[in-house]
Amino acid sequence: MTKRLLHPAIQDGGSRTGSPSFAGSILACHCKTRPVKVKVSVAIAHNHACGCTKCWKPDNAAFSVVAVAPSEQVSVIENGDKLVVVDPSALIRRHACKECGVHMHGPVERDHAFKGLSFIHPELFEDGDWPRPTFAAFVSSIIEGGVDPSEMDGIRSDLRSVNLEPYDCLSPPLMDYLSTWTAKKSGVLR
Amino acid sequence: MTKRLLHPAIQDGGSRTGSPSFAGSILACHCKTRPVKVKVSVAIAHNHACGCTKCWKPDNAAFSVVAVAPSEQVSVIENGDKLVVVDPSALIRRHACKECGVHMHGPVERDHAFKGLSFIHPELFEDGDWPRPTFAAFVSSIIEGGVDPSEMDGIRSDLRSVNLEPYDCLSPPLMDYLSTWTAKKSGVLR
Repeated sequence: MTKRLLHPAIQDGGSRTGSPSFAGSILACHCKTRPVKVKVSVAIAHNHACGCTKCWKPDNAAFSVVAVAPSEQVSVIENGDKLVVVDPSALIRRHACKECGVHMHGPVERDHAFKGLSFIHPELFEDGDWPRPTFAAFVSSIIEGGVDPSEMDGIRSDLRSVNLEPYDCLSPPLMDYLSTWTAKKSGVLR
Repeated sequence: MTKRLLHPAIQDGGSRTGSPSFAGSILACHCKTRPVKVKVSVAIAHNHACGCTKCWKPDNAAFSVVAVAPSEQVSVIENGDKLVVVDPSALIRRHACKECGVHMHGPVERDHAFKGLSFIHPELFEDGDWPRPTFAAFVSSIIEGGVDPSEMDGIRSDLRSVNLEPYDCLSPPLMDYLSTWTAKKSGVLR
């Protein structure tokens, strides 16, 4: 069996930095013919490793790498007829290529703190200058994807060794952001 | 306005240790007459500070202190007629005294990783030797209870200063436990 990786793009000791001036690029799916292409015309934010079972990840990777950009600046530019929504009931409407299975963009359209953002996988950018992920989210969830629980201490240690602090939900700033949105919606905060 | 505390029982610099031989005691509600009493006849586990908005907490506390014990060893011994279930749809069936409002025990009865456990607030023990909390859960959720988001960095720092590592969900071992239960239920793990 091939050794399970955290993710091919974060296996290099965390040395990847990307360019601070990265301002978007073209995402391409894995199809050799008629690849789906999605243009992101802005810098990406909150790039992170994600252990949830819903995000697309390459073979043998325990984590996906996923970031967000404003949905207004994410547009399908080629072969969009190949896209299907993976789970219409999910908060993130993940649009996958029905041929190669890669998720190309996932807008949040429902009333939610993340409404107006689209989740994308920066490893699909044709330009490799995208910034590195900065934390790891939903780490415990990789068990639900088949990782043996006995591996978890080692995996959290490996994540820290590549400067990805592991969290079993999102990062504290994002969790605070979600709670702030909820508190404003309920009227507790103004 | 009175200064908000983390919690009266964890405000003392984390010096509280409790007795390693603590094997249960009697929980009493705050009523001066006919207090509800609940006997816990076993050691408690996973004692922690909790920031969720559902747990009972004393006035001016940002966090509750809550632990679990096997439901079989938790029994109402006096004035149980004063107990009502706060929210019958919640996973934790929190039983509160309808006069003073204190939550006395909260069994998990539904099919869940925590089925068979009851959540209790050890500060209600008549015997004060219960062990100290060891982590802080659902920290970001205190914003939903009215804490200003700008206070969060200071609160996480305060929690660390009393040896309560802050998490925005449960602790990593408990999150792994939940994912393991889910993975076994789905057949991913055996």
